[in-house]
Amino acid sequence: MKKIYLDYAATTPVDQRVLEEMKPYFNKDFGNTMSVHSSGRAAKSAIDDARERVAKLMGAKPLRIIFTGSATESNNTVLKGIAFANKDKGNHIITSKIEHDCVLNSARWLEKRGFKVTYLDVDKYGLVDPNDVEKAITDKTILVSIMHANNEIGTIEPIEEIGKICKRKKVYFHTDAAQSFGKIPIDVDKMNLDLVTVNAHKMYGPQGVGALYIREGVKIDPILHGGGHEFGLRSSTSNVPGIVGFGKAAELRMKEMKDEAKKLTKLRDRLIEGVLKIENSRLNGHPTKRLPNNTNFSFSFIEGEALVLHLDMKGVDASTGSACSSKSLEPSHVLTAIGLKHDQAHGSLRLSLGKDTKDKDIDYVLEILPGIVKNLRMISPFKD
Amino acid sequence: MKKIYLDYAATTPVDQRVLEEMKPYFNKDFGNTMSVHSSGRAAKSAIDDARERVAKLMGAKPLRIIFTGSATESNNTVLKGIAFANKDKGNHIITSKIEHDCVLNSARWLEKRGFKVTYLDVDKYGLVDPNDVEKAITDKTILVSIMHANNEIGTIEPIEEIGKICKRKKVYFHTDAAQSFGKIPIDVDKMNLDLVTVNAHKMYGPQGVGALYIREGVKIDPILHGGGHEFGLRSSTSNVPGIVGFGKAAELRMKEMKDEAKKLTKLRDRLIEGVLKIENSRLNGHPTKRLPNNTNFSFSFIEGEALVLHLDMKGVDASTGSACSSKSLEPSHVLTAIGLKHDQAHGSLRLSLGKDTKDKDIDYVLEILPGIVKNLRMISPFKD
Repeated sequence: MKKIYLDYAATTPVDQRVLEEMKPYFNKDFGNTMSVHSSGRAAKSAIDDARERVAKLMGAKPLRIIFTGSATESNNTVLKGIAFANKDKGNHIITSKIEHDCVLNSARWLEKRGFKVTYLDVDKYGLVDPNDVEKAITDKTILVSIMHANNEIGTIEPIEEIGKICKRKKVYFHTDAAQSFGKIPIDVDKMNLDLVTVNAHKMYGPQGVGALYIREGVKIDPILHGGGHEFGLRSSTSNVPGIVGFGKAAELRMKEMKDEAKKLTKLRDRLIEGVLKIENSRLNGHPTKRLPNNTNFSFSFIEGEALVLHLDMKGVDASTGSACSSKSLEPSHVLTAIGLKHDQAHGSLRLSLGKDTKDKDIDYVLEILPGIVKNLRMISPFKD
Repeated sequence: MKKIYLDYAATTPVDQRVLEEMKPYFNKDFGNTMSVHSSGRAAKSAIDDARERVAKLMGAKPLRIIFTGSATESNNTVLKGIAFANKDKGNHIITSKIEHDCVLNSARWLEKRGFKVTYLDVDKYGLVDPNDVEKAITDKTILVSIMHANNEIGTIEPIEEIGKICKRKKVYFHTDAAQSFGKIPIDVDKMNLDLVTVNAHKMYGPQGVGALYIREGVKIDPILHGGGHEFGLRSSTSNVPGIVGFGKAAELRMKEMKDEAKKLTKLRDRLIEGVLKIENSRLNGHPTKRLPNNTNFSFSFIEGEALVLHLDMKGVDASTGSACSSKSLEPSHVLTAIGLKHDQAHGSLRLSLGKDTKDKDIDYVLEILPGIVKNLRMISPFKD
């Protein structure tokens, strides 16, 4: 059977060039970066090279990057680490209702420990209004955390405007760029970012590696205590092959991001145009301020889960909600935040594109999807 | 130049059979374990197989294992997760003075948040006395955390006896088995273990993957909040290739551990016998209750760092203190806990063996080490 992967937003295949660069570090040039002997020094030098490459892709200084185990860990570190380190200054955090669960659940955890959190509304496209950020800032605010691009609906937030406000108000500004890093440009200085979460496995690097940019002077506590790796901010033996892979992936993105974005935007827009011909369908997220590889649709009267399973039977990997919440029965918090009713939110489909997506894949989806939707609606209990 | 790796306690090369098993999951059978489509289900199934293999090596039920990013993360989860989840029951934790930094630093972090910690002394071999554990337990004690085997000096603790006491006193018992897993037997039921920390990269599996055994009914909070992976106890997209590698490594250890231990014990004892012929040298740790692959020596009047660098120049990778603290100027807390004076603790050398260690490697070390020690002593400012 034909096999078409359209779930790049959940995870990506590792680029073969990335894998080749990782290989020696598994059992030839292996070592513990904390060891002083030559194998240790070689491992250390390899992760320093990776640090430089990852830093470069966001216009940062290499020494301001720490490697973590995932974007989830980076986001947990930001929320909790900033809260604990700055509680003498204030106890208020601002975020939005459409952040990833790891931001929202870290925020909720902090609320139980005496911190106050403002969860900003978004508009029908999922956009945060910078004015809302400004209005929410008080003299107790220690952190603003707004994602760069949403993982479900692909909406790109006005990070640069929010960054200006935070700089003026002297509040730390964090963005979760897990979905956008390597897909659209990001620049820590231009955007006034103090903290940036990124990871490898959404940009053709390996799973199990994330990173966190921390601007010089930002007060933050670690959440993993131990041997003092990563400048004391993230203890754990460094995952050398993983970090090397992240570095290579970042280097490749630096060169290839622009052309890929151009190609994917075309494919994306063709997919959107075709899918919207299905009656009672809608596009979730912004028509243009969206990631080049993201599409997200709602189809009235049917369940997203059923859609995904029927596409799966035809060889297409897709997702409903986000991968992270796809096994929960709750409708997506992102889709409800942009105003979708529960049944519309349940009938959502995310098709996310990537480097191997071809014109004929889009043709195929446009060929089979209308029939699947039609069949599911015929048996739908929701359609009066 | 001859190249001899004798730092297996810091990190091990990935077994080629492990790497082969990991490979397809990087970019052929890749997927997000939370996705409902076939690629997601295949990834999920792969980590479930790994869960079974890792569980088996400690006699546990697969569903009681969660995967983490490292032993450091597992230990942080235990200390903080048990403390936060059981604070209504009590605020007292018992551990030892020779635990890994990630246990000790998590404990110190908890002390700043209202918890009380007892750091038990050890004897001259590094052994914790089970009677001391019993005496230290109060009605406020919520956790006893004693490592299975020490990472620096290889001493194997009387875990089974301590487990009996904790069971009788109804206190959760955790062991950090990062150094022992796959080297000596461990059985969660026989040893009455409620929580066990393990990782892959010390047993020929990949870096960046750990696991935590949690007995049914144990109340524990996650430290990474997010999408609810690993039964809600460790959010983050699963590192599928890494976890698959951990599973394969565990399966191989199951078959090969016994024979390797026999082989390494012989090599270890020959190394110890030979090194102790050097005057003013001593073995740190217990002569027999020690890991099959661990040796740790002190040489009066010289610096361990200098020893390691001179061995490095002759092609031998060794370590002083533990890898995790080898860049700090403090003498090892383990060596000071067993009664070594600062200068003795500074002059320590750990040579740790592994699957590729051969008789001729031991010959070579025994051939060059006496000369290196002699030369360093000739220029030593410490010698009278």
